[in-house]
Amino acid sequence: MQSEPILDIAHLAHVEMLTPKFDQSLDFFTRVFGLTVAEYKDGSAYLRAYDDYERYSLKLTSAKTSGMGHMAFRTRSPQALERRAMALIGSGHEVGWSEGDVGHGKTFVCRDPDGHVVELYYDTEWYEAPPDQAPALKNQSQRFPARGINPRRLDHLNCLAVDIKANREFYEHYLGFRLTEQIVLDDGTEAGMWMTATNKSYDFAFTRDATGTKGRFHHVTYALNSREEILIAADVFLENGVYIETGPHKHAIQQTFFLYVWEPGGNRVEVANAGARLILAPDWKPIVWTQAERRKGQAWGLKTIETFHTHGMPPVEDGGH
Amino acid sequence: MQSEPILDIAHLAHVEMLTPKFDQSLDFFTRVFGLTVAEYKDGSAYLRAYDDYERYSLKLTSAKTSGMGHMAFRTRSPQALERRAMALIGSGHEVGWSEGDVGHGKTFVCRDPDGHVVELYYDTEWYEAPPDQAPALKNQSQRFPARGINPRRLDHLNCLAVDIKANREFYEHYLGFRLTEQIVLDDGTEAGMWMTATNKSYDFAFTRDATGTKGRFHHVTYALNSREEILIAADVFLENGVYIETGPHKHAIQQTFFLYVWEPGGNRVEVANAGARLILAPDWKPIVWTQAERRKGQAWGLKTIETFHTHGMPPVEDGGH
Amino acid sequence: MQSEPILDIAHLAHVEMLTPKFDQSLDFFTRVFGLTVAEYKDGSAYLRAYDDYERYSLKLTSAKTSGMGHMAFRTRSPQALERRAMALIGSGHEVGWSEGDVGHGKTFVCRDPDGHVVELYYDTEWYEAPPDQAPALKNQSQRFPARGINPRRLDHLNCLAVDIKANREFYEHYLGFRLTEQIVLDDGTEAGMWMTATNKSYDFAFTRDATGTKGRFHHVTYALNSREEILIAADVFLENGVYIETGPHKHAIQQTFFLYVWEPGGNRVEVANAGARLILAPDWKPIVWTQAERRKGQAWGLKTIETFHTHGMPPVEDGGH
Amino acid sequence: MQSEPILDIAHLAHVEMLTPKFDQSLDFFTRVFGLTVAEYKDGSAYLRAYDDYERYSLKLTSAKTSGMGHMAFRTRSPQALERRAMALIGSGHEVGWSEGDVGHGKTFVCRDPDGHVVELYYDTEWYEAPPDQAPALKNQSQRFPARGINPRRLDHLNCLAVDIKANREFYEHYLGFRLTEQIVLDDGTEAGMWMTATNKSYDFAFTRDATGTKGRFHHVTYALNSREEILIAADVFLENGVYIETGPHKHAIQQTFFLYVWEPGGNRVEVANAGARLILAPDWKPIVWTQAERRKGQAWGLKTIETFHTHGMPPVEDGGH
Repeated sequence: MQSEPILDIAHLAHVEMLTPKFDQSLDFFTRVFGLTVAEYKDGSAYLRAYDDYERYSLKLTSAKTSGMGHMAFRTRSPQALERRAMALIGSGHEVGWSEGDVGHGKTFVCRDPDGHVVELYYDTEWYEAPPDQAPALKNQSQRFPARGINPRRLDHLNCLAVDIKANREFYEHYLGFRLTEQIVLDDGTEAGMWMTATNKSYDFAFTRDATGTKGRFHHVTYALNSREEILIAADVFLENGVYIETGPHKHAIQQTFFLYVWEPGGNRVEVANAGARLILAPDWKPIVWTQAERRKGQAWGLKTIETFHTHGMPPVEDGGH
Repeated sequence: MQSEPILDIAHLAHVEMLTPKFDQSLDFFTRVFGLTVAEYKDGSAYLRAYDDYERYSLKLTSAKTSGMGHMAFRTRSPQALERRAMALIGSGHEVGWSEGDVGHGKTFVCRDPDGHVVELYYDTEWYEAPPDQAPALKNQSQRFPARGINPRRLDHLNCLAVDIKANREFYEHYLGFRLTEQIVLDDGTEAGMWMTATNKSYDFAFTRDATGTKGRFHHVTYALNSREEILIAADVFLENGVYIETGPHKHAIQQTFFLYVWEPGGNRVEVANAGARLILAPDWKPIVWTQAERRKGQAWGLKTIETFHTHGMPPVEDGGH
Repeated sequence: MQSEPILDIAHLAHVEMLTPKFDQSLDFFTRVFGLTVAEYKDGSAYLRAYDDYERYSLKLTSAKTSGMGHMAFRTRSPQALERRAMALIGSGHEVGWSEGDVGHGKTFVCRDPDGHVVELYYDTEWYEAPPDQAPALKNQSQRFPARGINPRRLDHLNCLAVDIKANREFYEHYLGFRLTEQIVLDDGTEAGMWMTATNKSYDFAFTRDATGTKGRFHHVTYALNSREEILIAADVFLENGVYIETGPHKHAIQQTFFLYVWEPGGNRVEVANAGARLILAPDWKPIVWTQAERRKGQAWGLKTIETFHTHGMPPVEDGGH
Repeated sequence: MQSEPILDIAHLAHVEMLTPKFDQSLDFFTRVFGLTVAEYKDGSAYLRAYDDYERYSLKLTSAKTSGMGHMAFRTRSPQALERRAMALIGSGHEVGWSEGDVGHGKTFVCRDPDGHVVELYYDTEWYEAPPDQAPALKNQSQRFPARGINPRRLDHLNCLAVDIKANREFYEHYLGFRLTEQIVLDDGTEAGMWMTATNKSYDFAFTRDATGTKGRFHHVTYALNSREEILIAADVFLENGVYIETGPHKHAIQQTFFLYVWEPGGNRVEVANAGARLILAPDWKPIVWTQAERRKGQAWGLKTIETFHTHGMPPVEDGGH
């Protein structure tokens, strides 16, 4: 009989984004994007979408270059956190326990094979809306902002990696993520993977870094309530002079309706909507996309834009931007 | 330290709906609603939405009256099925093991305190689309029908119960469902509950049966990809002479955008869209709605329609339709 | 051979709304609704939606009570203005020429049989966006605000009248409006009318004043780009404590997707979307709705709310609010 | 004082499309696109969208190659038809009177300077829905089909021409169309024009034929009620193996949300939605787009696809497809 799945990770909790243009990035994320500042501390702004239940989902940190500081996942229970730490300690991937950060407590830190920093924690602070941010409906964390593009919640992130297979096995084995879709090239090597710990069809993705550089970031994605709001977001970006890299269009992989822009610090940001698509099967059979299938472009025929393969964060001299 | 959650139920798998007007109900669900017949057997039609991964999500059965035959949940693993059976055997709620039905294998059957039949199974048949139903994108179970209202997948069901609290405790204790929202009246009694085993904010709901009759059904709900499609569905129902009971509007509870109609056999059917709302917190704190809050009606002020409280299936002489 | 149509009116240009709570009304229209102030003058604010080509479409005027100061139509040409003035002079409906107002020149003023003030003009000032309001696309008057509910343009207005037929004949005969839909009661009297000078299916409507009071106002309507944005607007109104009277729903008459709220001064305001529906036939045959048909309520079954018949502006003692 | 506008054309009435694959084209337009056949006669099928008030808007004609047979406009009155005929007779553009065709009477035929055949008529037959096509709402011509992509009505057409300016002057001078937007190259020559006789921002467009061939066709466009339905249409085209040339995306010119496909006969077909955008100004100032502005691509940055410039109908040997 098959072994039982590891169900210890609850969800993607937040992403730390590095920016060399902190003030412009913050202006973008608050005024144009519509996030709210939950706290400022030590050169970082902690930002939230209106229905994130934790205090924040984006830690924006001033840095010399763009990129990702870390990604953080919340576990399903205190015991689940201990189990994951136990599994990681001695694996060579562990960094160790930390006392946490704004909004969350005791944290176990590790690195995936490609070098991305991953934080795990259970203890968290729920967002308590101040009176001027109190929502009309008590099952919502914060009032709908009606400003910018109104993202509802953090959805997923995407990083680059040199060895996709090694990274996949790390997330499967140590953290219990399930593979839902992947790209396998004609030579049998893996070029992309989409993994989930939830009923969302992915909580993160990795695609191969064409420059061979480790530890790079590709984008972070917020969920909007409808495709129509993503079309409106495109207008808002247009009006604000934000660089639209590609979209709106529908991904063939995962069927996500997407729009990609570059924030002032150079990081790629996506807004997306998945319609009613969820992965409910506990034994979902990963979808494998071939090289020929990827060549067809996106769902409705849009060719994948070249910078999607070359623009990683931080930029690298050879091939990156 | 808190005990760990039971994570054995994967998702709501299907609902058996009873209809005294089988032919008309079948015509409604296929031509107007847009489901596909996966199989006919012994007086039942097994129907599916285009992205249900199992063979069917609605078993439509000819009967003397309307109502629900049973609801079925798939477990996360074979072991999870055994654990739930072990917990139920000797509880007084068990009916026992069955060999399964079209599309799924070995099944453990039980009854909730209100008498609704609940089936649990793990072994299932994945839908294999015949060539004329093959989708363009291989991460979708079946091609988009472009007929009727195009529901994507089964979403949830709603039953009535005489003792909501007893039912809630049954589903929490024996099956591990988590309460996400509830109605508690001024006298402290529970009048409604919404529970989930997934990241959807509810897989089923129960509301109090005003007639004091046990075992009744309230509605089954299919998910559409957008609110716009629910508005279009309203037009399709209007054109086909289907009785629209209430909606489209937004529920205050769970924020679902809804539309309720009655199929020819008298059963209530809902189409809904949740936007990007998911319950990601593993320790979600249930939202409690008071009598005064419910009196406000739905999110945008629509008064809850009277038949919503009285029309249960099957009809009863006193107060039901 | 039939006589040729009068084609002298180009479109509804603006509405003057009276409010006893000027500051709150202005806050509502700018912050919550998303209009922009084009000018303040003599106790009035001149407000515009982002794609109104003239300087304003709503003149908000401080007054002792709610209601409409006047409605204004732009003519197709200077000659058209002279023709309409010539037709009206001596009719008993004329008030006479005025020098105009903020944003427009020489104006001919008249009153319809029910006493509503109607202004006609041709010379107008086109809106010139200041740099911070310049749109990204030069075929748009002003940048998309991404604030409040983002109405695109003035759509239509609705007044009450005691004698609908007399008013209809006035607008047909003197101004050349075409009747597109109407309500005729079982006793043969007219109870409502929808008229147009454009390809929109109505530029204004009149419904019978149940209180027998002349000259009252019912609502002004702004067009949003999609039904989805009207659903979002409902959330914005909910979050801001704005009274939602009815909707969102679809009118049977004219098929408009609607949402009605009351602004702080007591005036009813609608946001609407017509989909792709236009009246292109130059000889459109008016649709006549009977009493029985009206009793069915709106398109999807919503009963017409009682205050829709009683709440006119200004309020009257007997039967009005 | 400026002269008064010619207001004799009511609207674009229908387009005759030529197809070398009649059966496949007819299958596309009925099953995939969702039009209804109003009549078959002499090798042509007369097709209608569900809210076209005349009997048809697309005459599909079997021919040796793709292209446009003619375009037809309905006049505002019988007198308007006579006036236009009088203006054209002796101009060198006239072909002369015909007795009409299925669905319309006496017709004046002419050719624009580029050779496209233009028909003008007033007498028309209104569509009378048979019982199985009767709509629920009597202000709609035919029931909503809930099949294919459900276009509401014909919107506009686009042709190619060698001399844009000559064609513009023809449509302005003889037919009274107003220019709303145009492309003027750096050398001062006109490369594209959008003209209207209605409040739609264009009833037809012409762009320069890169091959120097006269009389060619570019596309016909149907209006859908929302952008969301255009996204759904993209899925329907994808599922049916229809070639999607470009889109969905938003045009910078006219701001139309668009999707272009090729029907089996090789003709380009567009589905579009204009949101709430209308041209209400009777003296609209044409928007002039420069070569540099056009180089930016569409509204959100999509590059204009190469075949958009080369694929005209019928195909030509040199440069066309």
